[in-house]
Amino acid sequence: MAINYKKELEKAAKGMILVHRPDVLIKMIVRTIVQKARVRHAGILLHDQDKDTYILTVSRGPTGLKIPAGFCRVDKDNPLIRYLSNPSRYNQLGPFLLVRDNLKRLLRRRLLPETKKLAKDILYQMEIFGAQVCIPSFFRQELLGVLFLGDKNNKRPFKQEELDFFFALASDAAMALQNARLFQGLQLQLERNERLFLSTTKALAGAIEAKDHYTRGHTERVTQLSFILGEKLLQKKFSGMTTDFLSELRIAGLLHDIGKIGVPESILNKNGELSDEERRIIQEHPIIGARIIEPIAELSFVAKGVKYHHERYDGRGYPEGLQGDGIPLIAAIIAVADCFDAMTSDRPYRQALTRQQAIEEMLAKKGSQFHPQLVDVFVELYQEGRF
Amino acid sequence: MAINYKKELEKAAKGMILVHRPDVLIKMIVRTIVQKARVRHAGILLHDQDKDTYILTVSRGPTGLKIPAGFCRVDKDNPLIRYLSNPSRYNQLGPFLLVRDNLKRLLRRRLLPETKKLAKDILYQMEIFGAQVCIPSFFRQELLGVLFLGDKNNKRPFKQEELDFFFALASDAAMALQNARLFQGLQLQLERNERLFLSTTKALAGAIEAKDHYTRGHTERVTQLSFILGEKLLQKKFSGMTTDFLSELRIAGLLHDIGKIGVPESILNKNGELSDEERRIIQEHPIIGARIIEPIAELSFVAKGVKYHHERYDGRGYPEGLQGDGIPLIAAIIAVADCFDAMTSDRPYRQALTRQQAIEEMLAKKGSQFHPQLVDVFVELYQEGRF
Repeated sequence: MAINYKKELEKAAKGMILVHRPDVLIKMIVRTIVQKARVRHAGILLHDQDKDTYILTVSRGPTGLKIPAGFCRVDKDNPLIRYLSNPSRYNQLGPFLLVRDNLKRLLRRRLLPETKKLAKDILYQMEIFGAQVCIPSFFRQELLGVLFLGDKNNKRPFKQEELDFFFALASDAAMALQNARLFQGLQLQLERNERLFLSTTKALAGAIEAKDHYTRGHTERVTQLSFILGEKLLQKKFSGMTTDFLSELRIAGLLHDIGKIGVPESILNKNGELSDEERRIIQEHPIIGARIIEPIAELSFVAKGVKYHHERYDGRGYPEGLQGDGIPLIAAIIAVADCFDAMTSDRPYRQALTRQQAIEEMLAKKGSQFHPQLVDVFVELYQEGRF
Repeated sequence: MAINYKKELEKAAKGMILVHRPDVLIKMIVRTIVQKARVRHAGILLHDQDKDTYILTVSRGPTGLKIPAGFCRVDKDNPLIRYLSNPSRYNQLGPFLLVRDNLKRLLRRRLLPETKKLAKDILYQMEIFGAQVCIPSFFRQELLGVLFLGDKNNKRPFKQEELDFFFALASDAAMALQNARLFQGLQLQLERNERLFLSTTKALAGAIEAKDHYTRGHTERVTQLSFILGEKLLQKKFSGMTTDFLSELRIAGLLHDIGKIGVPESILNKNGELSDEERRIIQEHPIIGARIIEPIAELSFVAKGVKYHHERYDGRGYPEGLQGDGIPLIAAIIAVADCFDAMTSDRPYRQALTRQQAIEEMLAKKGSQFHPQLVDVFVELYQEGRF
């Protein structure tokens, strides 16, 4: 019998390299084997690095034949694992691939007592898994897993050529799996670091904000409002909006007021009208903020959001009096969110507006204080009940 | 002739999956082909995603035969690239693999004028590269690269079986290369994010520090001193020191004084003796600092460094009066660096000590204020001229 499935399986094995989720990869391998190689069932005992045991990770075939995945766990000193881990012992039971029918035949011969015991123990394990064949899979001398196959659908014995092929396949699979694990490790570390960056920035910006007694929670609310406004703009394919822009917008939201660290507490928390000089000092906070983060090359775009979030669409804002589309979009978005939150918060010199009143105020100032299209989208979000 | 190198090359190709540096991988592929397949030279024209051209990335063979790598760049509308990019045209010149001798034979026949021109143009390109065979390599329908091979060492023509094998190999290489590129992309992003995290933390901690007029540059110096002390301890295999510890130590150094954000400016910058109440408030800064970062799960170890960096070895420090080895090592290290920098800096109420004086002071307080072994290692670093 020609092994006509070989080409298909080889092709499938190659695609494995680019599957970077270990769990998906393993399921794919076993499913492919069952389908293409026409065996009744197949499974993989996989080494669990954390617990240093071998776990039945996936098992496929008709119900009744297969053991549920995760159900079975095998110790390192299980006879099957011990034998397969140690290629130098492979001459003890003949071929390194364990074939149940061969073991049965072997047991009919005269054997050394220890060989007999070994063969019996392994046969017992293979029967538990309903395995006709067990194939070890190594990565750099470590037994990474054991692939086991049930009987062929046509009940014929496996040929040596087929067994060799499965051994090669198992070794490919081990390599792909190792690759996927490395990939997943990097990805998890990346996610962890992104979380760490955001939460640290949030904590430090929050601590700085706490100096200003009037603005509790302001930073987080502005970040959140800017982000949903940005998301909506992205949805509407607003020119210049990208997912990268969104991540930078989030950071700019968190950092927009950090320049307040440079404003004396006595001015920041003054209970009463500010003098012109005091107002001038407060109005320096966008520049101070930008100066703090400008040395960070990766945040040059974010720095623009911080620096210009008090510019006005009509050019009457500060620090530079930029106008219309001359104001970076990232800053114009924060300006909308920032003013809305300021209007709807209590201040020592006035009560908070209701959200409805603030929305009306923003519509009134559309095109003078605010970027007109941004106000429209912001109002749309409000009407949808998004905030 | 049997292609006896096939097994070796196949084995080499499998190992490629785990090479995660694209440049190393490509060199490996070409070197392996030249050695195992016994061709005079080989090279790869590789798609450069940024510039959308094909670049001669590596070329191997005796000097004189090969073009220096990087020297040659080929546009997307080069006839060779245009032809190989478009498999639906492959019937135009016969087999999809371009073999120079076949093209020459083809040109001796009667051809449509456009076919003749195409064949001539491609032949000309192949002669530039000294290529006997050109093999396209695809990734998801995109022409990722072109592998070209010079003549075989024994000058015989390539057999179809060999060409098929090289085509399969080129496709494996394309997959491995794509994998390596994805890997490298992740790794670069990871490095970028780590840099971003450190520089942002540094910038924000620096801005907070700037509120305290007496401590310019203190944070960075303490971070640096703590880090080299930590490195030395790691070198000496000091119990509990690891490279992970070192990264956390660096972060803890940057954040050790952030709690000062919670101390009023009037106390922080007071020019004169502090009252007991004012001293009590200043002494809250380690607790405030720890509270700021405690919500960040990943920084729970760092928070210990921040919280306990004013504890003393004899238990007479604050906030909790921890003693000896009860003080987390990360905090004990920062305490040494922190005090050294404080002693060697001017304060409104006293002049700075010289570094030599400060070292003597620390030796005098070894075992009372400071962890004795840490002082010894710190003094050793001083004597080595490390600071």
